[in-house]
Amino acid sequence: MIQTPYLLFLGDAPDQLAAKVAQGIKDWRPDNAVGQFRMPGCGADLGLTDMTLDAAKAAGAKTLVVGVANRGGVISKEWKKVLVNALEEGFDLASGLHNLLADEPDLAAVAKATGRALHDVRVPEVEYPIANGKRRSGKRMLAVGTDCSVGKMYTALAVDEVMRKRGMKSTFRATGQTGILITGDGVPLDAVVADFMAGSVEYLTPDNDDDHWDIIEGQGSLFHVSYSGVTMALIHGGQPDALILSHEPTRAHMRGLPDYALPSLEALRDTALPLARVANPNCQVVGVSINTQHMSEDEAMSYMEGVEKRLGLPTVDPFRNGADRLVDALAAM
Amino acid sequence: MIQTPYLLFLGDAPDQLAAKVAQGIKDWRPDNAVGQFRMPGCGADLGLTDMTLDAAKAAGAKTLVVGVANRGGVISKEWKKVLVNALEEGFDLASGLHNLLADEPDLAAVAKATGRALHDVRVPEVEYPIANGKRRSGKRMLAVGTDCSVGKMYTALAVDEVMRKRGMKSTFRATGQTGILITGDGVPLDAVVADFMAGSVEYLTPDNDDDHWDIIEGQGSLFHVSYSGVTMALIHGGQPDALILSHEPTRAHMRGLPDYALPSLEALRDTALPLARVANPNCQVVGVSINTQHMSEDEAMSYMEGVEKRLGLPTVDPFRNGADRLVDALAAM
Repeated sequence: MIQTPYLLFLGDAPDQLAAKVAQGIKDWRPDNAVGQFRMPGCGADLGLTDMTLDAAKAAGAKTLVVGVANRGGVISKEWKKVLVNALEEGFDLASGLHNLLADEPDLAAVAKATGRALHDVRVPEVEYPIANGKRRSGKRMLAVGTDCSVGKMYTALAVDEVMRKRGMKSTFRATGQTGILITGDGVPLDAVVADFMAGSVEYLTPDNDDDHWDIIEGQGSLFHVSYSGVTMALIHGGQPDALILSHEPTRAHMRGLPDYALPSLEALRDTALPLARVANPNCQVVGVSINTQHMSEDEAMSYMEGVEKRLGLPTVDPFRNGADRLVDALAAM
Repeated sequence: MIQTPYLLFLGDAPDQLAAKVAQGIKDWRPDNAVGQFRMPGCGADLGLTDMTLDAAKAAGAKTLVVGVANRGGVISKEWKKVLVNALEEGFDLASGLHNLLADEPDLAAVAKATGRALHDVRVPEVEYPIANGKRRSGKRMLAVGTDCSVGKMYTALAVDEVMRKRGMKSTFRATGQTGILITGDGVPLDAVVADFMAGSVEYLTPDNDDDHWDIIEGQGSLFHVSYSGVTMALIHGGQPDALILSHEPTRAHMRGLPDYALPSLEALRDTALPLARVANPNCQVVGVSINTQHMSEDEAMSYMEGVEKRLGLPTVDPFRNGADRLVDALAAM
């Protein structure tokens, strides 16, 4: 688990998009973000207070989070200076970069000497068990997508936020690096060894109060041949009581697979629900989440009305409409 | 890839069952087994010539294969003496034990000094790609089971054997440690990192002659919540043209999951086939393989007749009946 709150390191991000991990933290867990650290030439700005390491430390920050993609896949000399200083001043470091912090000999040496932690959230820090399939107490929701990157994480974070605003018991359960950095905890499922995938999801979503919801971050898609095994493990390890179907209507083909068409929402429902019922016979599909970012307001509304009619399920874009209707459906279960 | 042929190390196996990996090698690839090496007190006997290391070397053996389960999960001092001698005499070592050869400092040191290879077939030796989903030439068969350990490997080995006897082009593609030791090559799928599972199966079953069959070893089951993700990756990475359904009729519940009932063969067919068609729209279910080891001859025959009638597919126990009717169905495609 990563110590919060954070100082968000934006480095020399060329633009706002390069800082999207930091943006996610600020949007979804503002209490975790004490301030931002920008280097000369930084093209990103989260609108947080710019802080030196000293100032952030005084403000209570525990971890410097690399909230930016690095250029060329290497941790630059300029970054290193800041990261080493941060360790020396008592910060832990956390990163989701491919280029691991722990693989940098200088960072590893300083971390060891100062007793600070290096969190590479792409790498599992736990030895997960093999799944045992036992029914657990508490309720669980999982978003499943027609494709990868259709808004499953956004949907889960939005549902969690609404639930907590309503005073419901809810925990967002991160299964990818961005989600883990946002919340400080989770399972980097795509990096878990095959035999332990479903077990890692059981570990992530243990027994809980009967009225508590685990809102599990989805990964991949049952219809995406590169990652469908990861999705399958989430469905069986997560034992969801409720599925939400996620879709992006303007996509011409499956992400990265030009020869593969997207399935219909009906096909997704009819494939995912019977599989989910293997682990949880009471599982229901309760709503639909559409990512309409590439549609006009009119197009989006008319598309969602059509889906709602066809599937008979509350259908929203959580970004445009909020997640209230999805939470209504979950609360009614 | 493991150098063949082998000297099969049976050690101090308490009984025949403890040597089942060696038995599999002898049964399915007799040409790979030059002889057996037994220690005092060994309770297993494959009926092969007992050989010293010297004699096996002279007979052409390249690798000493640990074909026995070790007691207590440790590689004993007595075993070590033989393994070290084997390295010194120029053998590579291969093993599927949990306790890795490479984790034993003395074995690692001698292997390094002598330039010999230690093959721990539980550990991937290759950096696999992420699956790209591109259609590959050649034909592929995959056995999918209602549960784990219902005879999928046996079925695949039997189909491969019949195909080769008939002069068809066929390659058994191992995806588990026993299969890898039998053939000397394959992917230890349960040990591959999640993101690369389907890619490792693509790597294992590349483009081939149009009339060549890859007979892919199945793993897990779509209905086994601990391992279903592995099965899913096999179905999508393998792009099978043909599925064979495998089942063990006397099992009271899913292996290791007392609260989970086995699905029907119909449920397996109706779940696996649409998923397989995501990657290969021409996929067909062509036959059924029943493991009748716990049934009398009469029970077995009457059960299989019933299945054949219900599903309209050739139904055999490859152990009792041979795999000819399955190969007939595959050859007719």
